[in-house]
Amino acid sequence: MGKVFIDACFRKETPYTPIWLMRQAGRYLPQYKEVREKAGDFLTLCKNPELAAKVTLQPVEILGVDAAILFSDILVIPLEMGMDLSFQKGEGPVFKNPIRDMDDVDRLYDFPEERLTYVYETIKLVKKELPKDKALIGFSGAPWTLATYMIEGGSSKTFSTVKKMVYTDPDFVHALLIKLTEAIKAYLIKQIESGADAIQIFDSWAGVLEKSRFLDFSWEYLIDIAEFLKDRYPKVPIILFAKGVGGYLNEIKGRFDVFSVDWATPLEIAKEKLGKKYVLQGNLEPARLYSKEAVREGVEEIIEVMGTKPGHIFNLGHGMLPDVDFENAKYLVELVHDLTRR
Amino acid sequence: MGKVFIDACFRKETPYTPIWLMRQAGRYLPQYKEVREKAGDFLTLCKNPELAAKVTLQPVEILGVDAAILFSDILVIPLEMGMDLSFQKGEGPVFKNPIRDMDDVDRLYDFPEERLTYVYETIKLVKKELPKDKALIGFSGAPWTLATYMIEGGSSKTFSTVKKMVYTDPDFVHALLIKLTEAIKAYLIKQIESGADAIQIFDSWAGVLEKSRFLDFSWEYLIDIAEFLKDRYPKVPIILFAKGVGGYLNEIKGRFDVFSVDWATPLEIAKEKLGKKYVLQGNLEPARLYSKEAVREGVEEIIEVMGTKPGHIFNLGHGMLPDVDFENAKYLVELVHDLTRR
Repeated sequence: MGKVFIDACFRKETPYTPIWLMRQAGRYLPQYKEVREKAGDFLTLCKNPELAAKVTLQPVEILGVDAAILFSDILVIPLEMGMDLSFQKGEGPVFKNPIRDMDDVDRLYDFPEERLTYVYETIKLVKKELPKDKALIGFSGAPWTLATYMIEGGSSKTFSTVKKMVYTDPDFVHALLIKLTEAIKAYLIKQIESGADAIQIFDSWAGVLEKSRFLDFSWEYLIDIAEFLKDRYPKVPIILFAKGVGGYLNEIKGRFDVFSVDWATPLEIAKEKLGKKYVLQGNLEPARLYSKEAVREGVEEIIEVMGTKPGHIFNLGHGMLPDVDFENAKYLVELVHDLTRR
Repeated sequence: MGKVFIDACFRKETPYTPIWLMRQAGRYLPQYKEVREKAGDFLTLCKNPELAAKVTLQPVEILGVDAAILFSDILVIPLEMGMDLSFQKGEGPVFKNPIRDMDDVDRLYDFPEERLTYVYETIKLVKKELPKDKALIGFSGAPWTLATYMIEGGSSKTFSTVKKMVYTDPDFVHALLIKLTEAIKAYLIKQIESGADAIQIFDSWAGVLEKSRFLDFSWEYLIDIAEFLKDRYPKVPIILFAKGVGGYLNEIKGRFDVFSVDWATPLEIAKEKLGKKYVLQGNLEPARLYSKEAVREGVEEIIEVMGTKPGHIFNLGHGMLPDVDFENAKYLVELVHDLTRR
């Protein structure tokens, strides 16, 4: 039996438009909270293959989405490069010793992918349980997004530390990006070899750069990673998500399969500029999940634009918010399947 | 003697492209820090007309910008509507009792503009000292941006509280927006009557809404305010700054004079879509001020796009960062004047 999601990534005919939801394994699911409590903190859960596999599978079982996405965090790469990472309540991730110069870059361990065995174990466990018509998506953060956390030392409002480096010490930033790019390539290959059916790369902070710097410090590296993976595993679809680049979609290029559109970019504009070249994924505003009516209106608007022919994968335009009612997420999945059935 | 900045707002010939910088009165200026220390906290400084006038004038004296902008904060309106506002280190503004329902809206004082006398006093003091060829810009936050702070209780990463309201209780949000719109109109009229030569409205959080909601909850109110002001004071230019709407510039309309372009929106796209209808202001990436070389490159790129004919006012694409070297800001102002002199 084929996988609807994978067929859709390659613009093949499918019985309906498939759907999954970014950050679909998370706190809005009561069943997730149970497992999370058992595990203790977030990183412990990521490092426990049995529990991580369990929460990876939950959205498939509960919501009926067409793909599971590996439960993990983008920051496991810097963690396994030797950085001191913790998640602090309300503050998000914090790195105790941010990367600030070339010596810091040199001190990062090579081959973090060899330490990420718990991720590959999770993938194998998921694949044993996952129904054959559903896909498992592996993922990584983009080099640029990982670099922002590593240089800032966590989240930021202004990203002024990393931006200062971009304008005053670009060689340092590129050295870090090159090191991350090599690690990400090896990490994603290992995810594919462990059973991941597709790969999504998250460049959540692409939009903090102006266009020229975005192309140099972010997109060039994504093109390189996609090229590397497609050369080796052409049948594994690559999905790129770069948040905040709706102002210059003309610049988006590279050998990947699916472009994931953020909610701030009107889908009709993404379709016009990129819809022939890439399958588009997205882009329901996540806050619509606070209301069934808002979900229905949003779904209808998106289907109006994208139609029901191949070329579209339904998703949110950013990650699921933690305090939405999971019944609304279930409603969303059913609605998309119903309204797009050919 | 005419004011270069005002002429430029109306697309008249000027001897060079005028420049001012969003948040030009601020911590990057040693002279500002001196006054700020004397005043104590930030709100005390805003409420002290003599000191506020002093810091308003500093960038004109130190950098040679073509316009001063009133030193104040967008949140003085909710403050004078009776909300408990404080500025907490590293956290930004905090409202102790956020607005969460219609009763809260009803409890907000009407006519906050009557309590904002310290602002009008500041304007009058500035106008006494300001050279006649320089302009003074008055300002207000946009209704939507003020509402997000008032509902969230401060800054936010996800804006999930206010967005939840937008999708589940739109009437409540509109009631607040209507009340704010009336207050802003009256406030800006009083600023103009006190001597403000131009008005800028800041919609810093426009971009947290998807397009359809942005138009309903933000832009409609801005169009209304601009119309109201232009009917009464057609010779006072109105500048609108809506951050994060680069994905749908086609939707921008209304009776105002200058559209201020954020740094994330490529200026060539803004020019193509809006440059005939509005004078454009912007849009140097503020982080370029960390480096003189980056300033020069950015200025050259912008002048390459906008040329030196009427239709452009130079500015940053967002507010000045607090830790840049003021010498770089001075260099920026001189460079723009030099390179655009006709």
